[in-house]
Amino acid sequence: MSLQQDSFALKGNICYSINPREVYCGENCYVVCAEGRSAGVFRELPEQFSKLHVYDCGDCVIIPGLTDLHTHAPQFANRGMAMDLQLLDWLNTYTFPEETKFADLEYARRAYGMFVHELKQGATTRACIFATVHVPATVWLMDELERSGLCTYVGKVNMDRNSPKELVERTADSIADTTAWLRQIDGRYSRTSPMLTPRFIPSCTDELLRELGHMAQQYQLPVQSHLSENPAEVAWVKELCPWAKTYGHAYDKWGLFGSTPTIMAHCVWCPDAEMELMKKNGVTIAHSPSSNRNLSSGIAPAKDCLDAGLKIGLATDLSAGESSSILKVMSDAIAVSKLRWRYIEEQTPPLTMEEAFYMGTIGGGSFFGKVGSLEAGYEFDAVVIDDHELIHPQELTLHQRLERIIHLSAHCHVVKKYVRGREIFL
Amino acid sequence: MSLQQDSFALKGNICYSINPREVYCGENCYVVCAEGRSAGVFRELPEQFSKLHVYDCGDCVIIPGLTDLHTHAPQFANRGMAMDLQLLDWLNTYTFPEETKFADLEYARRAYGMFVHELKQGATTRACIFATVHVPATVWLMDELERSGLCTYVGKVNMDRNSPKELVERTADSIADTTAWLRQIDGRYSRTSPMLTPRFIPSCTDELLRELGHMAQQYQLPVQSHLSENPAEVAWVKELCPWAKTYGHAYDKWGLFGSTPTIMAHCVWCPDAEMELMKKNGVTIAHSPSSNRNLSSGIAPAKDCLDAGLKIGLATDLSAGESSSILKVMSDAIAVSKLRWRYIEEQTPPLTMEEAFYMGTIGGGSFFGKVGSLEAGYEFDAVVIDDHELIHPQELTLHQRLERIIHLSAHCHVVKKYVRGREIFL
Repeated sequence: MSLQQDSFALKGNICYSINPREVYCGENCYVVCAEGRSAGVFRELPEQFSKLHVYDCGDCVIIPGLTDLHTHAPQFANRGMAMDLQLLDWLNTYTFPEETKFADLEYARRAYGMFVHELKQGATTRACIFATVHVPATVWLMDELERSGLCTYVGKVNMDRNSPKELVERTADSIADTTAWLRQIDGRYSRTSPMLTPRFIPSCTDELLRELGHMAQQYQLPVQSHLSENPAEVAWVKELCPWAKTYGHAYDKWGLFGSTPTIMAHCVWCPDAEMELMKKNGVTIAHSPSSNRNLSSGIAPAKDCLDAGLKIGLATDLSAGESSSILKVMSDAIAVSKLRWRYIEEQTPPLTMEEAFYMGTIGGGSFFGKVGSLEAGYEFDAVVIDDHELIHPQELTLHQRLERIIHLSAHCHVVKKYVRGREIFL
Repeated sequence: MSLQQDSFALKGNICYSINPREVYCGENCYVVCAEGRSAGVFRELPEQFSKLHVYDCGDCVIIPGLTDLHTHAPQFANRGMAMDLQLLDWLNTYTFPEETKFADLEYARRAYGMFVHELKQGATTRACIFATVHVPATVWLMDELERSGLCTYVGKVNMDRNSPKELVERTADSIADTTAWLRQIDGRYSRTSPMLTPRFIPSCTDELLRELGHMAQQYQLPVQSHLSENPAEVAWVKELCPWAKTYGHAYDKWGLFGSTPTIMAHCVWCPDAEMELMKKNGVTIAHSPSSNRNLSSGIAPAKDCLDAGLKIGLATDLSAGESSSILKVMSDAIAVSKLRWRYIEEQTPPLTMEEAFYMGTIGGGSFFGKVGSLEAGYEFDAVVIDDHELIHPQELTLHQRLERIIHLSAHCHVVKKYVRGREIFL
């Protein structure tokens, strides 16, 4: 292994998921970054790395960068507000009016600038992001994300029915704009990638979905959308697509359900046949517990999905989710899983801290490749957290400190962050 | 009205509950403090107050101090950890071993010092606090709370059965220690008051409860305990007190259920007869949504209690609740009420932001008298919050800013705090 100038080591208290049941916790260890990837975690720095610069993180805790599998950049403005309606009314009352503003590039620059600033401050290093239907604003968001150093997928949204007139696209325009968008950003970024983004079945005609399916295939583009979030939404999809066995099958028919890498957000109300199709097609679930609770959608069976071997990671889903922190989402995922156990499904125990941490790191990170761990071979996404403000009178194990970081820490405790071995200026 | 030196005005954006359905939001207003009480909120400073010093809080938001109706000071060490068991196992595995440490006054001073520090930093100005069985540590906690400037009730815990040998008291000792404790602190404080604190029915014999009931009557002392938190606990109480119509009646028999001002924490699984007795006796409910979720206890019917005219406020319940912030508890109360609506009780709508804010201010504050508002006549507990870090691209109303403070703010956004008109050094 050649050691470039961009190779280095961090020394500190290192935690990462080994699997959904186990977290590695090594106090005073070294993690080596060699050319953007981890070369491993060591109790003593091996001879071959002895010439590397070592950044001593003191008593801080070093965790893998977190992945936010589903969030809406234009809804950043509404975070922490306007959560008193269910999905369909919420969209019409709060969300669509806000997204309409992104036709104005000046507003978009201000709003997206704040979104990216917030994303940088926290522990997230990877994200899959909905923009709006507007191409100029979407390109500006991608430019800004590229500058941030984070690695992201971004989608210009497609919606050509059942939407307010300020946002609804003509089908042909939706496709033409998407093509123009893809052409405009082709080769423009090293960390920022496009993702096809049909909003959800109710706002996309069959024709639009068919065309997007063709584009996914032709350009080998990943896909993101929403699935089985709310009972009224699921019922509406049944009306709109009476031919579809499930909501998921309505995407699948057009090659938008795992033909290329696909993320489906929510999955609260999936029938068995939909779960089976997701498993068969390798669709990744973006579990959004905070959002699902805030919009009274329900509690998704995350533990069951994990146990059944489905791909599943965590998502903030701004602004139905109020927080941009995946650590907060881990905390919420555990919390709501206890209520699911109590009221819905007593045969499935609640999520453990280890499972939540796994979903927020490797679970979501896997969508980006070998991402979400500090083990040798993983891309070097690392977050250094200073937890000394979380005062305690007793000795704590590193595992306990990690648990407290999940439940109690805030963005301000993130003191250093690396993506693919490159330090992010916080 | 004579204007003393300790009278002053704050200028800023002022929010307080008018009732459970309405929040007053006044931008650039004045709130006048005269001798420890609010003399009212004004758009222009009235002539009679024109000589008062005005502290300009700029664009900050000023809210009433918050009341935490139920928390456990000795469990501060375990916050954000150890939430993977249900109540009875959790007590034996995590809580009782931690409380045992408070026999050591050195440990108690360190741990309680941190607890009080944390309580001071946040938006809480009033709290009802469980200590442990240990008198010296309890007195030290009360001394430290008095020094903090906060107004609190504190209870030496009584427990004489079904408890680990390091904590269980002999009945006579429990009473003697309680008497000695009351004697030791008699006349010692101006802001810190004792509260009788039988832990809960399972850990208190009838004899102990009878004696405590006599003490409550004799010294006119308020009472705090736990009620109907977890199904296994409720079943155990039924076994222990087969004669009692409900868990609440088992307290009521000994004059510990509203004969003097009484707080009962949790009330997740109360049958109608218990609710009726609480209403009849004027018992105050300490709603602890974060705790009830973390220990898989369930979701209490807070909205029903509020609608039925029961007294109800909010509680962090450290360390079953992970956070010491009543703002976080407001956010959680709203969130879990949506899941209650979805899965348990579709005829009861979720809590609104206004209702949660009411419970965290006037709802809990009323236990302390005329507390929890900035309206004229209320004791002057006020918190100044700087929310400028909660960035947003659009104009916000003050009501929207308050909603964001509830869901997004942290202790670090509290910049000034007053209790009974006296500024707390943060």
